[in-house]
Amino acid sequence: MIPLITSHPAPVASVLLALAVILVGARLGGCAAERLGQPAVLGELLVGVVLGNLEWANLQWLAAIKTDPTIDLLAQVGAVILLFEVGLESTLRDMLQVGLRSLLVAVLGVAAPWALGWWVGALLLPDKSVYAHAFLGATLTATSVGITARVLKDIGRARTREARIILGAAVIDDVIGLVILAVVGSVIAAASTGTSVSLGGAGFVMAKALLFLVAAFSIGAFLSPRLFSVASRLQGRGVLLTVALAVCFTLAYVASVIGLAPIVGAYAGGLILEEAHYRDFLDRGEHRLEELVRPISMFLVPVFFVVMGMRVQLWTLTQPGAFGLAALLIVAAVVGKQACALGGLGAGLDHVAIGIGMIPRGEVGLIFANIGLGLTLHGERILDERMFSAIVVAVMATTLVTPPILKWRLTRAERYGVRVLSGGDAIAMTGD
Amino acid sequence: MIPLITSHPAPVASVLLALAVILVGARLGGCAAERLGQPAVLGELLVGVVLGNLEWANLQWLAAIKTDPTIDLLAQVGAVILLFEVGLESTLRDMLQVGLRSLLVAVLGVAAPWALGWWVGALLLPDKSVYAHAFLGATLTATSVGITARVLKDIGRARTREARIILGAAVIDDVIGLVILAVVGSVIAAASTGTSVSLGGAGFVMAKALLFLVAAFSIGAFLSPRLFSVASRLQGRGVLLTVALAVCFTLAYVASVIGLAPIVGAYAGGLILEEAHYRDFLDRGEHRLEELVRPISMFLVPVFFVVMGMRVQLWTLTQPGAFGLAALLIVAAVVGKQACALGGLGAGLDHVAIGIGMIPRGEVGLIFANIGLGLTLHGERILDERMFSAIVVAVMATTLVTPPILKWRLTRAERYGVRVLSGGDAIAMTGD
Repeated sequence: MIPLITSHPAPVASVLLALAVILVGARLGGCAAERLGQPAVLGELLVGVVLGNLEWANLQWLAAIKTDPTIDLLAQVGAVILLFEVGLESTLRDMLQVGLRSLLVAVLGVAAPWALGWWVGALLLPDKSVYAHAFLGATLTATSVGITARVLKDIGRARTREARIILGAAVIDDVIGLVILAVVGSVIAAASTGTSVSLGGAGFVMAKALLFLVAAFSIGAFLSPRLFSVASRLQGRGVLLTVALAVCFTLAYVASVIGLAPIVGAYAGGLILEEAHYRDFLDRGEHRLEELVRPISMFLVPVFFVVMGMRVQLWTLTQPGAFGLAALLIVAAVVGKQACALGGLGAGLDHVAIGIGMIPRGEVGLIFANIGLGLTLHGERILDERMFSAIVVAVMATTLVTPPILKWRLTRAERYGVRVLSGGDAIAMTGD
Repeated sequence: MIPLITSHPAPVASVLLALAVILVGARLGGCAAERLGQPAVLGELLVGVVLGNLEWANLQWLAAIKTDPTIDLLAQVGAVILLFEVGLESTLRDMLQVGLRSLLVAVLGVAAPWALGWWVGALLLPDKSVYAHAFLGATLTATSVGITARVLKDIGRARTREARIILGAAVIDDVIGLVILAVVGSVIAAASTGTSVSLGGAGFVMAKALLFLVAAFSIGAFLSPRLFSVASRLQGRGVLLTVALAVCFTLAYVASVIGLAPIVGAYAGGLILEEAHYRDFLDRGEHRLEELVRPISMFLVPVFFVVMGMRVQLWTLTQPGAFGLAALLIVAAVVGKQACALGGLGAGLDHVAIGIGMIPRGEVGLIFANIGLGLTLHGERILDERMFSAIVVAVMATTLVTPPILKWRLTRAERYGVRVLSGGDAIAMTGD
């Protein structure tokens, strides 16, 4: 119901004002970041941090945004739309083509930061449970495809072999990360209800997650062309977008029902919908799905990042050990991904560049951290506010350091006329 | 927070499933309606009615959609986006150009159905207060620009003088309707708090509403080009959409703060944003605002109509007098708008066609009815479920009857080779 006349504005009005502030803030922050050669998402997060820590300004309603259930839900829908969009950018074929080397790079790049993050947790937070340490490590696993792709594109290196291996590995480690999230999450849930956690139980969750993805991929690859073919008989604009959103939302729901995060389903939905399946729609003048989804994502995704930023409580960083935690997490995140370089050895590749290219963490890490904030074990949150803030700071730092370093590494070859491998050998440029 | 592992799916997952069902249902209904030569909105409403009355199917979670606060809020945001989109379709200049004849047609077309609807209420619902009767009449005032424009376009008559007068009048009666809504609503609010309602008080609300619109229009017309000019210095995609949404949401909030419905502000926002103001963005390859807003509207607007349909409780129509109320409301809605024909007299116009073209009610009427459902006077709802259902049925009937009658009226000239005026005179086609 829309209350018409109220002494206070209608609930929907407060939500609309909050959305206006979030959208304008996010765009200003994003534009400022881009002007400084940084990814836009960094600016959105920072604006969120500023808005969320303006308590001195006595802006009560601004503080209320952080805990408003509708804004929270819109932020979650934003995360679902974002993962759907990321999924749309790649196809199943892309994932199969990048092959074994990307898989190797991805596995190394997941295992090392996870282990390092786990170890950082055990070292600095001995009073926390082993589950919290494992979760902390898990938030460092997934590379942000978007940020690396953007940097590679900006410096004209998006089609080199290194770039394809990095992007392929980033896609794969999204999937591995989602599986780890499901496993760690359900182990915590089991521990929380007092059920003993067996290796078999963890294996069951992993099997379930993999089964869901394989089922979604194979059924989706089979059904998607047929679905669009039936839908293309319907007249009227909006059919394409409706089908796409319905697939995304339904898979997100199914993922949730079988105990996975909704974003896993949304990502799978994006992967199975391919342009080749809906050519009929393009032929009659519809825009591509990426373009149709973009305005919805421009509307809802900034809500997610700004709210994430707002949840960073800067004062928690002044608590004993918090600053050190953030610093060590950054080191774990950066050093851990250099394990990826091992996967690039022995094929005439700039393997250092591969390790650097895998550094940025972004949306997936933040979504993990947000999930951790909502998980409890024996009444205690798995991630407390100090850990959450440290993770967000670490995520921001990784996006901050990568663009300049990667640009430096990939363009130094130009400065010397050849690409210098870290072993000291020099070969001609191999980019295609 | 996204609960990761739950025995029941996460709250966001239920919302996503509800959205998927609503979107697919709305699109199927819309496509079916269009195939039968009816406006899509009719199909969306009917699908809502079917989904909302499936109690026999024992689908508990379907019934839960009707009362879910998040879905309700998304539906309200959908209504805001819809009115913004309708506003974007016209410019202030359009409104000023259609001139006095459209204003005359609009005023007659608002006054007559309001009086008739009020009288129907007094006749059939003598136990209800005079406020309820006045509100019932007010829901019949606003013509749906969208439906008439669509029919005129479909039969190739969108640029005739009659068409321009009808569309101009429909725009003006939206504004008049919004002012009436504000006045009636605040009179009810005053009566509800026991404050005596003076003519002066009602005049104050009307003055406030007009002042808001005039202020939004004049400040907006001055600020809008400057705002876009500043914003166009920002790089990055999404700036245009962000500015537009921020203007829409902020005006909706301001409207709400001064006691008007948020949709009034959204509509004003749409009117003041003109393509001429953001040419810089178009020059660098951005899409037009209408195109940017459309995916968001395709996502959220069907939620509004399907939820409206779901709130129609068919069983209430079997209550004593309900069916008669719906039938008389339809008569009042159709006959009342024929007063518009008087405004078209004496200028060589097909004035019967003008009266027919003004018949369809749509989004604004439904939004009014929804507001009425939320207003209470001395603990009793202004519109009860029976009245709400009757209004929705009446709205659906007006959209159902108009397309065939208008098509018949405007194409009979072709059949006779001339346009026949209702007075019996025949003149050559005057369409330009």
